[in-house]
Amino acid sequence: MPYRLIEKKEFDKIILHNGDWEIKMQLFAEMNRYNTLVAVKKAGSGHLGSSLSSMDIITYLYLNEMNVLTVGLDSEDRDIYFSSKGHDVPGLYSLFYSLGILPAEKLLALRRLHGLDGHPEVRIPGIEASTGSLGMGISKAKGMAWAKSYKKRKGRVFVLTGDGEFQEGQIWESLQAAAHQKVNNLIAIMDHNKYQTDMLVEDVNNIEDIVEKVSAFGWYVVRIDGHNYQSLKNTFTNLKSITDQPKMVIADTIKGKGVSFMERPVTETISGKTYYKWHSGAPDDDSYLKGLNEISERIYQLSQKLGVDRIEIPENEAEGKITTKIQKEFVTDAFGDAIVELAKTNNKIVVLDGDLSADCKLRKFEYAYPHRFIENGIAEQDMVSMAGGLARMGLLPIVNTFASFLAARANEQIYNNATENSKIIYVCHFAGLIPAGPGKSHQSVRDISLFSALPNVIILQPCNGWETKKVVEFCVNEAKENCVIRLVIGPSPEVIQLPENYKFTFGVGTELTEGKDAILFGYGPVMLHEALVASYYLKEIGFGLKVVNMPWLNRINSEWLIGITRNYSAVYVLEDHSIIGGLGDRILDTLISANAINNKKFKKFGLADYPECGTPLEVLNYHRLDGKSLAMQIAEIDEIDSKLVRDLKQKYTDEAPQ
Amino acid sequence: MPYRLIEKKEFDKIILHNGDWEIKMQLFAEMNRYNTLVAVKKAGSGHLGSSLSSMDIITYLYLNEMNVLTVGLDSEDRDIYFSSKGHDVPGLYSLFYSLGILPAEKLLALRRLHGLDGHPEVRIPGIEASTGSLGMGISKAKGMAWAKSYKKRKGRVFVLTGDGEFQEGQIWESLQAAAHQKVNNLIAIMDHNKYQTDMLVEDVNNIEDIVEKVSAFGWYVVRIDGHNYQSLKNTFTNLKSITDQPKMVIADTIKGKGVSFMERPVTETISGKTYYKWHSGAPDDDSYLKGLNEISERIYQLSQKLGVDRIEIPENEAEGKITTKIQKEFVTDAFGDAIVELAKTNNKIVVLDGDLSADCKLRKFEYAYPHRFIENGIAEQDMVSMAGGLARMGLLPIVNTFASFLAARANEQIYNNATENSKIIYVCHFAGLIPAGPGKSHQSVRDISLFSALPNVIILQPCNGWETKKVVEFCVNEAKENCVIRLVIGPSPEVIQLPENYKFTFGVGTELTEGKDAILFGYGPVMLHEALVASYYLKEIGFGLKVVNMPWLNRINSEWLIGITRNYSAVYVLEDHSIIGGLGDRILDTLISANAINNKKFKKFGLADYPECGTPLEVLNYHRLDGKSLAMQIAEIDEIDSKLVRDLKQKYTDEAPQ
Repeated sequence: MPYRLIEKKEFDKIILHNGDWEIKMQLFAEMNRYNTLVAVKKAGSGHLGSSLSSMDIITYLYLNEMNVLTVGLDSEDRDIYFSSKGHDVPGLYSLFYSLGILPAEKLLALRRLHGLDGHPEVRIPGIEASTGSLGMGISKAKGMAWAKSYKKRKGRVFVLTGDGEFQEGQIWESLQAAAHQKVNNLIAIMDHNKYQTDMLVEDVNNIEDIVEKVSAFGWYVVRIDGHNYQSLKNTFTNLKSITDQPKMVIADTIKGKGVSFMERPVTETISGKTYYKWHSGAPDDDSYLKGLNEISERIYQLSQKLGVDRIEIPENEAEGKITTKIQKEFVTDAFGDAIVELAKTNNKIVVLDGDLSADCKLRKFEYAYPHRFIENGIAEQDMVSMAGGLARMGLLPIVNTFASFLAARANEQIYNNATENSKIIYVCHFAGLIPAGPGKSHQSVRDISLFSALPNVIILQPCNGWETKKVVEFCVNEAKENCVIRLVIGPSPEVIQLPENYKFTFGVGTELTEGKDAILFGYGPVMLHEALVASYYLKEIGFGLKVVNMPWLNRINSEWLIGITRNYSAVYVLEDHSIIGGLGDRILDTLISANAINNKKFKKFGLADYPECGTPLEVLNYHRLDGKSLAMQIAEIDEIDSKLVRDLKQKYTDEAPQ
Repeated sequence: MPYRLIEKKEFDKIILHNGDWEIKMQLFAEMNRYNTLVAVKKAGSGHLGSSLSSMDIITYLYLNEMNVLTVGLDSEDRDIYFSSKGHDVPGLYSLFYSLGILPAEKLLALRRLHGLDGHPEVRIPGIEASTGSLGMGISKAKGMAWAKSYKKRKGRVFVLTGDGEFQEGQIWESLQAAAHQKVNNLIAIMDHNKYQTDMLVEDVNNIEDIVEKVSAFGWYVVRIDGHNYQSLKNTFTNLKSITDQPKMVIADTIKGKGVSFMERPVTETISGKTYYKWHSGAPDDDSYLKGLNEISERIYQLSQKLGVDRIEIPENEAEGKITTKIQKEFVTDAFGDAIVELAKTNNKIVVLDGDLSADCKLRKFEYAYPHRFIENGIAEQDMVSMAGGLARMGLLPIVNTFASFLAARANEQIYNNATENSKIIYVCHFAGLIPAGPGKSHQSVRDISLFSALPNVIILQPCNGWETKKVVEFCVNEAKENCVIRLVIGPSPEVIQLPENYKFTFGVGTELTEGKDAILFGYGPVMLHEALVASYYLKEIGFGLKVVNMPWLNRINSEWLIGITRNYSAVYVLEDHSIIGGLGDRILDTLISANAINNKKFKKFGLADYPECGTPLEVLNYHRLDGKSLAMQIAEIDEIDSKLVRDLKQKYTDEAPQ
């Protein structure tokens, strides 16, 4: 196994050693930075920049300020810490390993099924709150602190936030209410590392002067260097005497601290603009080894200074995986290209983004039409209502962010816009189950249900790049109603082949395979790939499954549907979504309304529980949504002799996208 | 017709008269206050306090500051005004009548079908944005202002906000983004009338120092007397020279201004606490006439001062409707009593509210257990995440607000809590179609669909007070998962009679009538009443409809359902909700999974479009959900001779609750 951690016993050595306190802390933190880098590299994804910038803060808190290591994780009098931003959890997991809260094998199973979730989950020892979608933490910490007071329990609540996170309205809700409610056993700490996804906070949506703002909201605020242990110590000691206000520490930090080339403001330049590139993602092999070496060197220096025995630093190699040179399809690329093309002749189009421009493939549009691109920062509700205002003025807004945030954080705003009968296009990037590494805060498997009851919204999901272009063109040029476009954010497992003569037609799907024994409707490249794999398996055992790509998730041509299902006694729907509220419910509605169900078997495959975290293969298997499991379930239902099902090689690779 | 307005020609007189400008304005506004009072009295509901407090501001703007009367409502260069809070729209409608934008018959059809919507809707001339749910206006205004700049159009955007509204996080999102985006042709005005629903803003969730806060957010802020026309004039004149920042005017106003006994701080005292009572609701006859007299007197004085011809003030009487002394059932009362009772022996219960304590019948609990009651103000996201923190600490939070806000504004927060597998009870007050006076921002007909895809949430709606108590007891004492309780907020049209031996049983409904020809499942007192009425009609023509009360909206005992539907060839579901995503979809799921649909007819009644505004009878009829329409639709489907359907007297009365 090529991934090795600095072992716990080395950390114990530091704790037990009598020496300069500050150097002890710095060394402890550096050793954790090392392990964080290993864990993220092994995972293949994870957020390094914030894990590294917050490491000194959490090292300070757990080793000096909080009582949780002495009173225990179950004590009702324990101090509580958690991170509101959540994505800095690889650093926290590493710290937990060094403190004996988590075993090594878990740390080396970051973002793996039954390992450690990509964003914090309370099922993991030491994790006090599940977080991942920004802006909720101070509210939740307020509840915890209030509960402690109510139950007359000791212990303070510490919550770490990001800085871009202060673009979220809920933060200000919680600040105002906490001050009013006098929840004074609450300390928020901002990991003020100046960058959000890949740009400076001050360029995206400036939060300064943050001390002035938070003070105006009635909190006691101090601003310090978040890497200076003496400052941390003085600050938190002084805060103990502030008992009549909730408290905030603005900790100026360096994103990527500890690895020189990850430390801002080192960036990459694209089209003349500079971007921070270490917010998320595992480093390439060279950067990985270079980073480990840098940290190792500093560990060596510090251990010398401290006068402690030599710290055992393990051998670590890069796995040397040849990343495939084959260009994978990203439907988001096709989307990004399509809007640039359409904007050439349609000057009503205005594109809005919520700090996810790179992920949503909006950069091309941003460069081509800077005056038509609105970067709103991490403020989805504002973005959606702003789009409402643009639409009232006759423009055509195309609103972008991750599906879970757009559909659920800004649901009421979308409803309000829709009641005005204007037209807005909402693009739900990162729709569906995969990628599953980030965890359930990011996997969006409820969004179709969150839009379906809106009378004037058309929901679509294209199956490949070509269809994506058609979908966007339809939404922009033809649709009279609002549109929601779901896009898978990772690489398509395969490019779904559509028939030569395929015309993208309202309410009508496309047959991808022939088969007479059952029919299955699916959408999107991830699940259609699994459906096709299932059809290959079933073909091997003489069972013909017709797979139909159905990109129209809530507008179904009834005549077409009745016709295409007429001769089938079994109808399946494969959701990239919960089995509740997706395409299946609408197909069933249509068949029932037309009295066309006629004793057919009808079954939906999809999620019946929360989506799991892991690699695509792990998670598809876990939920029995991989092609083989689907084939077996379909075959079981039809009582085909399962001894005939052979283990065909999966075409799907294990390359988990970031 | 006993409701008469001061006619438009009287207002024209004022406009044309040469005289002291300030007195002209004051007189114009007072005349509009008069008409506002008439309109709200006729409607039977409406928000007087804010209509009256904002009247001087909007009078000033439309008659002096904005160009919309000269360039016209369709000009792309027009100044734009709208109110973010929305509920002050009766005052705005009155102003529109006085300016010739709306005809008299519309003003006298406030909250009536095809009249004027209870909260602003863009289908009404002059209304620039649909609002009603707080906090969205500055964002939307930002979009409008941005669009004007983009299209190189003239005109500024003025948006009025409330003060309690600044408890909503989205406000701060929009302030921060607007400053960063330099949307400088944007002016927000706060109608700072100090009271929110019935309490002082500073007591509920203090927004001060508001000038300091908004300035810190990069806006240019001034604070003035919102009833002083000279101050308004000077202020808005000066603001024209501020071109590098968005601008905010904090206008100190008096809620209820113009009617002495409605002007704060006149309040009523309940249990030793003082409350403001004129936020919403039509005045009783005495108050109405007294109010009209006061305003008339002031109109007379001002017209004398101005030197204008006598203003014709019409005769107005109170209709003298005998409000029924029969005590109506409110399921919310049963809810409020139930939580007080349960809290006696369960000290984990903590109740949270979002400034709707009176409407949600929480006051009893508040007085009995003040230390277990958390008033969070108009901050639902914070309230829900705070509940998450409480639940993590082992408490049992019961979260309350209106269904549309809880389900849609705080959807992501509810999801996040649910992923922690703690237990929280969410109470969705004002669920369903009725009352319909406030309009679609308040009518909640999507909430079931917004919760359904959550794996660990049980959704229930009781049919009467007794069942409400059972539901609450189940949720508190037995449920292992999160619960959502939908409650109708108005009076029950009838007290649904449950069988003597009825035991509230998980996943099982109750038969309310006998009938062999079709079976209909429904829930809640409003729709079950209509279902019962339908069954009476159908009985008259020899058609037996079995009506089943089904309080379990997403947990259905399959065996029970199969059994009870076995002998029916037609299955109906009556939603108090959209036909998408409600009980019907879950019943159909269950029947299909059990292969029990067997060529039965299956049909859902409910909303296929946005809910209309009007009285209960008007709106139920419009959507064909009243008992008679249901009976006719059921009869049509079964081809029963409709000539036999007679017009039975509706038991439902026209008392529209506030």
